[in-house]
Amino acid sequence: MFEAAELGRRLSKADYREAEPELRARLLGAQRRARAAGLPVLLLITGVAGAGKGELVNRLHEWLDSRNVRTHVFWDETDEEKQRPRWWRYWRAMPAAGEIGILFGGWYARLIEDARHGRLGEDGIEGELDRIRQVEQMLINGGALLVKFWLHLPAEEQARRVEARRKDPKSHWRMAPETAHEANHYDAFVELATRVVRETDTGEAPWFLIEATDRPFRDLTVGKTLRRAIDTRLEAGNGPAPTKVSHAPALPEAETARRTIVDHVDADLVLSRDDYKKHKRSLDGTLNRLGWEGFTARHPVVAVFEGWDAAGKGGAIRRLTEALDARLYNVIPIAEPTDEEAAHHYLWRFWRQLPRDGYWTIFDRSWYGRVLVERVEGFASQPEWARAYHEINTFEEQLAEHGVTLLKFWLNITPEEQLQRFEARQETPYKQHKITDDDWRNREKWDNYKAAVNEMVIRTSTEYAPWHIIPANDKRYARIEVMRIAAEAVKRDVKAKKKAADKG
Amino acid sequence: MFEAAELGRRLSKADYREAEPELRARLLGAQRRARAAGLPVLLLITGVAGAGKGELVNRLHEWLDSRNVRTHVFWDETDEEKQRPRWWRYWRAMPAAGEIGILFGGWYARLIEDARHGRLGEDGIEGELDRIRQVEQMLINGGALLVKFWLHLPAEEQARRVEARRKDPKSHWRMAPETAHEANHYDAFVELATRVVRETDTGEAPWFLIEATDRPFRDLTVGKTLRRAIDTRLEAGNGPAPTKVSHAPALPEAETARRTIVDHVDADLVLSRDDYKKHKRSLDGTLNRLGWEGFTARHPVVAVFEGWDAAGKGGAIRRLTEALDARLYNVIPIAEPTDEEAAHHYLWRFWRQLPRDGYWTIFDRSWYGRVLVERVEGFASQPEWARAYHEINTFEEQLAEHGVTLLKFWLNITPEEQLQRFEARQETPYKQHKITDDDWRNREKWDNYKAAVNEMVIRTSTEYAPWHIIPANDKRYARIEVMRIAAEAVKRDVKAKKKAADKG
Repeated sequence: MFEAAELGRRLSKADYREAEPELRARLLGAQRRARAAGLPVLLLITGVAGAGKGELVNRLHEWLDSRNVRTHVFWDETDEEKQRPRWWRYWRAMPAAGEIGILFGGWYARLIEDARHGRLGEDGIEGELDRIRQVEQMLINGGALLVKFWLHLPAEEQARRVEARRKDPKSHWRMAPETAHEANHYDAFVELATRVVRETDTGEAPWFLIEATDRPFRDLTVGKTLRRAIDTRLEAGNGPAPTKVSHAPALPEAETARRTIVDHVDADLVLSRDDYKKHKRSLDGTLNRLGWEGFTARHPVVAVFEGWDAAGKGGAIRRLTEALDARLYNVIPIAEPTDEEAAHHYLWRFWRQLPRDGYWTIFDRSWYGRVLVERVEGFASQPEWARAYHEINTFEEQLAEHGVTLLKFWLNITPEEQLQRFEARQETPYKQHKITDDDWRNREKWDNYKAAVNEMVIRTSTEYAPWHIIPANDKRYARIEVMRIAAEAVKRDVKAKKKAADKG
Repeated sequence: MFEAAELGRRLSKADYREAEPELRARLLGAQRRARAAGLPVLLLITGVAGAGKGELVNRLHEWLDSRNVRTHVFWDETDEEKQRPRWWRYWRAMPAAGEIGILFGGWYARLIEDARHGRLGEDGIEGELDRIRQVEQMLINGGALLVKFWLHLPAEEQARRVEARRKDPKSHWRMAPETAHEANHYDAFVELATRVVRETDTGEAPWFLIEATDRPFRDLTVGKTLRRAIDTRLEAGNGPAPTKVSHAPALPEAETARRTIVDHVDADLVLSRDDYKKHKRSLDGTLNRLGWEGFTARHPVVAVFEGWDAAGKGGAIRRLTEALDARLYNVIPIAEPTDEEAAHHYLWRFWRQLPRDGYWTIFDRSWYGRVLVERVEGFASQPEWARAYHEINTFEEQLAEHGVTLLKFWLNITPEEQLQRFEARQETPYKQHKITDDDWRNREKWDNYKAAVNEMVIRTSTEYAPWHIIPANDKRYARIEVMRIAAEAVKRDVKAKKKAADKG
C-alpha cells in the first residue's frame, strides 16, 4: 500500500517558492471560512519516525492563523489520564467548533505501539480498530472534519535520516525519544501500519498518504490537501440534508405495542416507614463502607438518574449521597450546555466530567437527554437521535472496559402520581422552584416520552450497563431500591477488582 | 481563640426540627438570588479532624439545590497538579458566577499539614499566609463571596469520637485516612490552627468558628451563617460603587514625564539579512536543543508577547516556534473569553492554560490586557486595572516559585512604522485578515496606550519576571532579540535546575 508513496516525487525550491504564497492565501481563506461556519477540524498527523511530523506541524503553524490551532501530543500518560477510560485523553484534545486541533499520532500511535509491544492480542487489535472506526464515524456525524495524514518514508531514507541526526551533535535533539527504536524495526512497523491504515480508511475518514522524502513536496501536498478537504466539506454543507438513518422500530407500530416496558412497572410497590428506616440505616453503612473500599481499591462509579419530571431523582440522589462521604462524589446536573460544551460533540461534556478512579460521578439527567427530551422536543434531528443509541452504547462500553461501575436508573411514576406531586410542589415554599411551565408542557407529551423511554431501555440495556427501572410512586420504595442496587453492583465490582489485583 | 467555640452550645432535636424548614427555604432563596446575580460563592470547610466536615457537606447538599454546588477535595496531588504552580489545583476548583464551590480544607489544609510536618520553615509559613491573604483579597475584589468555616471540637470530644469510630466496625470507614494521626497531636494542631486562623481573619474574608460538638447546632449554625453571608453580600452589591484605589502615578503628570520608557527605545537598530540568517540558524539549533533539554529536565516555560498592533508579535512567535519542536509548545491567543472564562476571575483563563513541566505555553497577548486595552478602552474600571498590577505580580511570583521561566516581551515600534505596516497589510492578500477597524481606532489613542505601557513596565518588571522591551521597527532585529533572550533565560534556568537536582 505504501508503494504509492515511494514514487520519488519532489518539488524544486523554485517551484515551492512560487506555489507557497498562493497556497498560504487559499489555506488561510479556508481556515477563515471553517471558523465562520463553526466547523471543528481534526488533523491527525502520523506516520513513520523521521518523516518530519514536527517540521510539518511547524510549517502548518506558519501558514495558518495560529490563533485557532492547538497541538496535542500523547507521550506520557498522566495519572489523571490513566485513571479514566482509554479515550479520555483524546476527548480532552477535541477541537471546538471553528478550531483546528492537530493531534500528533492521534489514537493511532498508541494502537500501533501497544500492538508492536505485544500489549494487545489479535482480538485487542481488532477491537481497537473497530473502536476507532466507530468513534471517527461518530465525530464526523457530529459535524467534525477529520483529516488523517500518514507520512511515509522508504526504509533507506528513514535509516539515512536517523543516522544523519545521530551523528550531528547540533540536530540530534530534534529526534523525539522514541524515534531510534522505531527505525530499527522498519519492516514490522510498516506491516502493522499497512493493516491499520487499510482497515481505518473509510469513505468518511480517508487516509492521505504523503510521500515525505522531499520536504517541500511533503509540506505543500499536506497544505493543499488540507485546503481542499476543508473547502469540499464546507461546500457539501450546503448540499442536501443528511438522509434519515434507517431505524427499525423497537416495537411494531401497532395497537398492541402501546403497552410498553414502562407500563409493566408495578406501581403499587410500597415500603412502610419502619421498613424504610431499617433498610436505610443498613444501606447507609454498607454504601459508606463500599465508598471507602472503592476509594482504596481505586474503583470508579458513574451513576445516571433519569425519570419522569417529579419522579424523585433529586431525592433518590440525596439519599444515595447521604450515605457516601461527600469527599468521594460529585453530582453533575445536566441542563443547558455552556458555550464551550455546545461547541463540541454532544458527548464531550460527559467525558469531561468522568470521575477519576476511586470517585463517584452522579449525573442528574445525562447523555440520555439526546434520545429523550431532544428527541421528543425536536432539538435533535431524527438522524441525530437515531444514531445516538449506538453512540451511547459505544461510550458506555468504554466505561465498562475501564472497569467503571455504571448504574442507570429510570425512576418511573404514573401520570396520576405526577399530577399529585406537581400540585404538592406548588404548595411547599422551598419546592416551588422545582416546578416550571416546562414541566406542565412535558406532561402533555406523556405518550411521546413513554415511547422514547421504551425504546431507550430496549436499545441501551446492555450486559455491561443495564437499565434499572425503579417503581417510584412510593418514594421510600424507590430510594431503597436505588441504594440496594448501587450497593450490590459496587460490591460485586470492587470484589472482582480486588480478586484480579490479588492474582495479578 | 477557640475557647469561643467550646461553650457547649446545643440544639434540641425539637428545636432543630422546628427551625430547619424555615432555614431551608431561606437558604434556597439566597442561593437562587446568588445565582441570578451571578455571584460565585466559595465555601471553605475546614477544622479539626472528626468534627464532621463530611456530614456537614452532606447536609448542605441536602438543603441547597445541588445543581449548582460542586465539592472539591485535595487529598492526593496528581502529577498534572504537581507539575504546575502550587495553587493551580485550587484555581481548577474555582466556582463560576452563580455557582457554589465547596472546598474541603481549601488552601488551609495543605498549609497546616506542611507546617506540621516541618516542610515549611518559619519564612515559608509567613510567606504562605501572606499569599493566602493576597489571593483571598483578589478573589473578593474579583466579585466572589468567600465564606470560611472552621469547625472546632474540644480535645476530649475529638478523642471520644475517634475512639468510638475506631471501635465500631460499621462506622470506622467514615474516618478519612488522615483523621487518626491528627487526633493524636491535638495540642500542636490547635496551636498552629490558632495562628493560621488569626492571621487570615480579615475584614473581607472573616472566619466563622463553629462549635461542632452538637451536630444539630453545627449544621444549623453553618446554614444560617451561609444564608446571611450571601444576603449581606447581595445587599451590599446595591450599595455605593467601590472607591477608587489609591494609585500613585508612576511618573508625575508633568511635561517632562511625557517622555516614557517606550520613547527611549532605539528605533534604528537593524540587522542585515546576512547577519539575520547567521544568527537565526545558530539560535534555531540552540533553542531546539534547549527545548529538549528542558523537556528532559521537566522545566516549564511561559512566554508572553505584547506590543503595538502590527509590531510583529505573530512573526516573532512563529520564528520562536519554528525553532522549537511542535510537540513541546502551544500558542494561546487571547481574544474574547468564552462564557466559562467570563464567569470566572479574569486570571482564571490564564491559570487553566499553564503548561505542565517540560512544556512551553506562548501567550499571544495575555493577562496584561487588563492594564492595556481594558484600561484604555474602559472595559475595566479604575479600581480593577489599578489593582491588577499587584495581582499580576502575585500571579507571576507563583510561576517563578514553581521554577517557570517567564519571558515577557513588549514589541515596540514607532507610530510611523505602524502606519506603513497597516498600509502594507491591506495590500497583501493573505495579510488582509490581520487588519481591522479596531486597529485604526487604537492607533488614534497612541498616547493613552503609551502611558499605559509605561506604567505597566514600571510596575510589573520584577526581578523574577522582567520586561524585555524589544525595538521592533526592524523585524529581523526584533525576532533575533526575542530568540536570543529566550535562549539565554532558558539555558540559565535549566542549568540551575540540573545543578539543584544533582545536589538534591
